[in-house]
Amino acid sequence: MSAELNKAKIDVSLYLVLDPDLCGGEAAMVETAKIAAQNGATVVQLRAPNWKKGLWLQCAQQLKAVLAPLNVPLIINDHVDIALAVDADGVHVGQSDIPVQVVRQLIGPNKIVGLSTNNLANVEQLLTPEIANCIDYIGVGPVYPTSTKKDALPVISSAEMAAMFASTGSLPAVAIGGIGSGKIAPLIAAGADGVAVVSAICGQADVALATRNLGAELQAARAQSNAN
Amino acid sequence: MSAELNKAKIDVSLYLVLDPDLCGGEAAMVETAKIAAQNGATVVQLRAPNWKKGLWLQCAQQLKAVLAPLNVPLIINDHVDIALAVDADGVHVGQSDIPVQVVRQLIGPNKIVGLSTNNLANVEQLLTPEIANCIDYIGVGPVYPTSTKKDALPVISSAEMAAMFASTGSLPAVAIGGIGSGKIAPLIAAGADGVAVVSAICGQADVALATRNLGAELQAARAQSNAN
Repeated sequence: MSAELNKAKIDVSLYLVLDPDLCGGEAAMVETAKIAAQNGATVVQLRAPNWKKGLWLQCAQQLKAVLAPLNVPLIINDHVDIALAVDADGVHVGQSDIPVQVVRQLIGPNKIVGLSTNNLANVEQLLTPEIANCIDYIGVGPVYPTSTKKDALPVISSAEMAAMFASTGSLPAVAIGGIGSGKIAPLIAAGADGVAVVSAICGQADVALATRNLGAELQAARAQSNAN
Repeated sequence: MSAELNKAKIDVSLYLVLDPDLCGGEAAMVETAKIAAQNGATVVQLRAPNWKKGLWLQCAQQLKAVLAPLNVPLIINDHVDIALAVDADGVHVGQSDIPVQVVRQLIGPNKIVGLSTNNLANVEQLLTPEIANCIDYIGVGPVYPTSTKKDALPVISSAEMAAMFASTGSLPAVAIGGIGSGKIAPLIAAGADGVAVVSAICGQADVALATRNLGAELQAARAQSNAN
């Protein structure tokens, strides 16, 4: 499995991380995911750290049912067993979760594995072939202050963020943390391949419009970045 | 796989459920498990609901290393992925966790699967062959008030407990919840195949002595129960 093959697995352009509380419960969250996927979200992650795993499984099954027909991958945060049980498209883990080598062994070669990074050292540790072949993309964050992740690390400085994006090689890198309307351009300019959002979609009065607006802002930021 | 074959998989006589806080941290917990297993504990469960899964994995690996040479099975609470990653002997789930049919599919036919039950209806739901073939033992509890499980359900009445034990057929049933010195005989008399303990071993000044004393009390209770 080469890094180029990995890269083809996932489009991180507009990456929705679900929040059941912001969405207003499980059913509303599934509906949010569906509308976002219909309006430009390129990947959806289920993240519900306070849930029992019976609810995780049930909701993951529902998300898979609405996302698969739209060809939008479903990523499960932390729990490889839930991903295996619903045949999800992949798993996202943090630095304190199951190590990516173990995740890859459990989930097999064809699924997507993502890893959160918070500093340049985190990224540099991924550049050995053994590790790079275990992951398909990285999250870089938090890039802004965030209120939706209780155990969030310190915000990454602009300089370190740019160094992190410059160090990822061909591995797709998605910025995360406090990203919303008006905040995308600096991240794309710094080298992000995409942006992950939570509250900019979850709980918005018009999820379709919010998603389309974020997509338009992303396209404009890319055009501006390419022109420079 | 018949229920009789399942029964041979596990001896629930003296079932230790670990608590990292009571033990005083990860290293002390592994040592507690080792000493308990050397002194009569017949099975050990790792349960750490507040831990990140990197620590779960690391500790499960350490527990497997000390328990396997003693032929004492290691059961992982909730997380099938951790059990798969360390090739643990089994998984224990509650009513709100991954359903036992899904656990069985993920973990394969040869591992131990246990399920918590809190009332007679929970037990009666297990008596269809489809479900019975997915589990190897049940937990029945809480049989006494407990402080070590924050989301514990109401204590089961003596009458309901006896009905539950009478309904399990050949499935081993272990009583759990607030069990310690002096509290074992009524449970064995009511039909329990074994007792699960937390604070009666975790955090005890002399883990070896505490475990041996519980084992002696269990044997005496069984002798008394057989004599009646």
